[in-house]
Amino acid sequence: MEMFKVKPVDKVLELLKEHFDGFKLSTENLLLDAAEGRVLASDIKSKIDVPQFNRSTVDGYALKAVDTFGCSESLPAFLEIIGEVNMGEETKLFIENGQCAYVPTGGMLPSGSDAVVMLEYTEKLDDITLNVLKPVSPNQNVILKGDDIKKNDILFKKGHLLKPQDIGALAAIGKSSVEVFRKPRGYIISTGDEIVSPTENLRIGQVNDINTYTMLSELKKAGANIIGHSHAKDRFEDLKHKITKILPDVDFVIISGGSSVGTKDVTVDVINSLGKPGIITHGLSVKPGKPTIVAKIGDKAIWGMPGHPVSALVILKRLVLPFLDIILKKEKQMIYKIKAVWGQNYPSNHGKEEYVMVSLTPSEEILIANPLLGKSGLISLMSKADGFVKIPANKEGLLSGEEVEIELL
Amino acid sequence: MEMFKVKPVDKVLELLKEHFDGFKLSTENLLLDAAEGRVLASDIKSKIDVPQFNRSTVDGYALKAVDTFGCSESLPAFLEIIGEVNMGEETKLFIENGQCAYVPTGGMLPSGSDAVVMLEYTEKLDDITLNVLKPVSPNQNVILKGDDIKKNDILFKKGHLLKPQDIGALAAIGKSSVEVFRKPRGYIISTGDEIVSPTENLRIGQVNDINTYTMLSELKKAGANIIGHSHAKDRFEDLKHKITKILPDVDFVIISGGSSVGTKDVTVDVINSLGKPGIITHGLSVKPGKPTIVAKIGDKAIWGMPGHPVSALVILKRLVLPFLDIILKKEKQMIYKIKAVWGQNYPSNHGKEEYVMVSLTPSEEILIANPLLGKSGLISLMSKADGFVKIPANKEGLLSGEEVEIELL
Repeated sequence: MEMFKVKPVDKVLELLKEHFDGFKLSTENLLLDAAEGRVLASDIKSKIDVPQFNRSTVDGYALKAVDTFGCSESLPAFLEIIGEVNMGEETKLFIENGQCAYVPTGGMLPSGSDAVVMLEYTEKLDDITLNVLKPVSPNQNVILKGDDIKKNDILFKKGHLLKPQDIGALAAIGKSSVEVFRKPRGYIISTGDEIVSPTENLRIGQVNDINTYTMLSELKKAGANIIGHSHAKDRFEDLKHKITKILPDVDFVIISGGSSVGTKDVTVDVINSLGKPGIITHGLSVKPGKPTIVAKIGDKAIWGMPGHPVSALVILKRLVLPFLDIILKKEKQMIYKIKAVWGQNYPSNHGKEEYVMVSLTPSEEILIANPLLGKSGLISLMSKADGFVKIPANKEGLLSGEEVEIELL
Repeated sequence: MEMFKVKPVDKVLELLKEHFDGFKLSTENLLLDAAEGRVLASDIKSKIDVPQFNRSTVDGYALKAVDTFGCSESLPAFLEIIGEVNMGEETKLFIENGQCAYVPTGGMLPSGSDAVVMLEYTEKLDDITLNVLKPVSPNQNVILKGDDIKKNDILFKKGHLLKPQDIGALAAIGKSSVEVFRKPRGYIISTGDEIVSPTENLRIGQVNDINTYTMLSELKKAGANIIGHSHAKDRFEDLKHKITKILPDVDFVIISGGSSVGTKDVTVDVINSLGKPGIITHGLSVKPGKPTIVAKIGDKAIWGMPGHPVSALVILKRLVLPFLDIILKKEKQMIYKIKAVWGQNYPSNHGKEEYVMVSLTPSEEILIANPLLGKSGLISLMSKADGFVKIPANKEGLLSGEEVEIELL
């Protein structure tokens, strides 16, 4: 077995970027109804102006603004009403000086007009005569053609994650479907001779498989398609057989518990037997989570994950989800962190980055973050966690009263 | 038409709670693979202790802690090795004073033992003799039976939203499926004679339907099942026909643009013709979004939403999503807000709660929030927003430098 130095998380992120930047994920065309949360596979350029015509933002009268300058309640401007604009229809009216036409909210401004005076600042004297009581400036109460989106504007770039309001914007430019990257496909193989599926009966000495379910839920939530999962014995043949069988159908395989003490060597041997380039890194200078294997076979990724439930979730969030972002070519997202005040002294002087699960309690204007203490590996503890905090390698712990940043779970 | 006073958002939330608290949503049984993000329909009680046996957290030797007291590198404790524990199997070994047995990480402790000494603090002299170089205390390096979850403990209550790590916890107690509330079913009817679907060709005077797509994306993301959408003309018969046809199949109907100037009266007339109890509230003292209709027909909800894209999204997030939480009987969630520093003076002196879309820019240790200014109703503006800020009704605006709380979009 080759020796690999343990590396900090940021260094592994760089290696992932280097190795998987050229990943080719195929694309699919989706109707807007199904596109939320997906990542654009091409730039979106608008073929139209939005709106396609000058549009009123109020109910009122379209006119030339200059005709209202200086008017007031005591000295109204008199205008001739030459007609009205129907909602959703093109108008052929033309406004000359001294003229106006009724236009509803969202209606099209007639040619010649450059502003709309709100209904409440007018008095209709008869069918063809209007008093305007308040002046308007040019373009007032109007959205101009192309004000929202201009024809040929790039609305979104390749790699853009589609939020609900983005789906609305795509509808606005008349796109009814978009090309997105297909969901990255993954498969989870659980290892550990004591691990059994919750669908089976538990015998004394055995424990239920926790990590497969936590990880597949988190991966699906993050936009991956986990096509299945199964258990492999901690033997070279069984693990190799399971991986080679599934590898052609997926983009990545996760070996749950594959970096645990009892399985690590088997995982490494199997990966080394599968092809090139092989293991990228092995071991992370992070607590919890040190034993983590990242490998690349052809263009696919293989992850050997720790068996410890907290480690598995932290490594998944810190490395596997960013890997998905890389192969999806996702635009850099801002990760907003919640600020909180640390609740009790907590030492961390082992020279490694540490991730601590915390519970958050509101207290007047602030949030108090307390570490969830308990024996290592408790799943119940993780269900009580609201998030986690990172303690840098060069920091000797956290003091009560210190401000910390929380990544929510 | 009955007159309804405009109400603040919090008051409408109370009314929603009052009217929809007793909503009966049917339930379904889901495999764990599909349960993330769903809401439990019954309490989950553990039928087993987790773990079901005393378990080692390290590779080492199980022994009686008392046998190691006082030992050191210069004065090791001598113990008899009586065997080893196999991973995933029940052990029949029994540790007497002066004895020990090898146990791997996750392995079962033999009866009689109460601690595990790590491999690295031992020296094996021969197959049956061990030197222990460091004392351990009782229960050290052990997870006791039931330490994680105790038999008969309530793990989660009805109404609990299942996070990824909760799915892991369900697996831990051997649940392979859970009873959850089915997704609330909704249908969106868009109105406005100028509105056309992005699948159709746009004529001058018409605009594409934005809000249906923004809202259905946001609702699906929030866990609703939007079974379809269509357009209705702003006529009593057409709107009534469409609502009565779909109402038996859904829990709620959203009339997009149903509270807009041109459609409001038709919406109200149709709702009044459909049955009891009818309109709950009509008009909100909030900017943007004032014209919002909330009605109840039988046990179903009908929402008349503003046509303005920003209003529609804000009202959806402030009222419709909480309505979903009510009918799902969801446990109260903490909503974490991001703190930011306001970037420019912004007046808001109309006596109504105001929601302002903002962009966030990191600046050293803080985030700067700037209002997205632009003509009302621009969808492109909403796509640039990172979140929104609420200005209370009694506040006259926001000053540059003030701390604000952002709800992310």
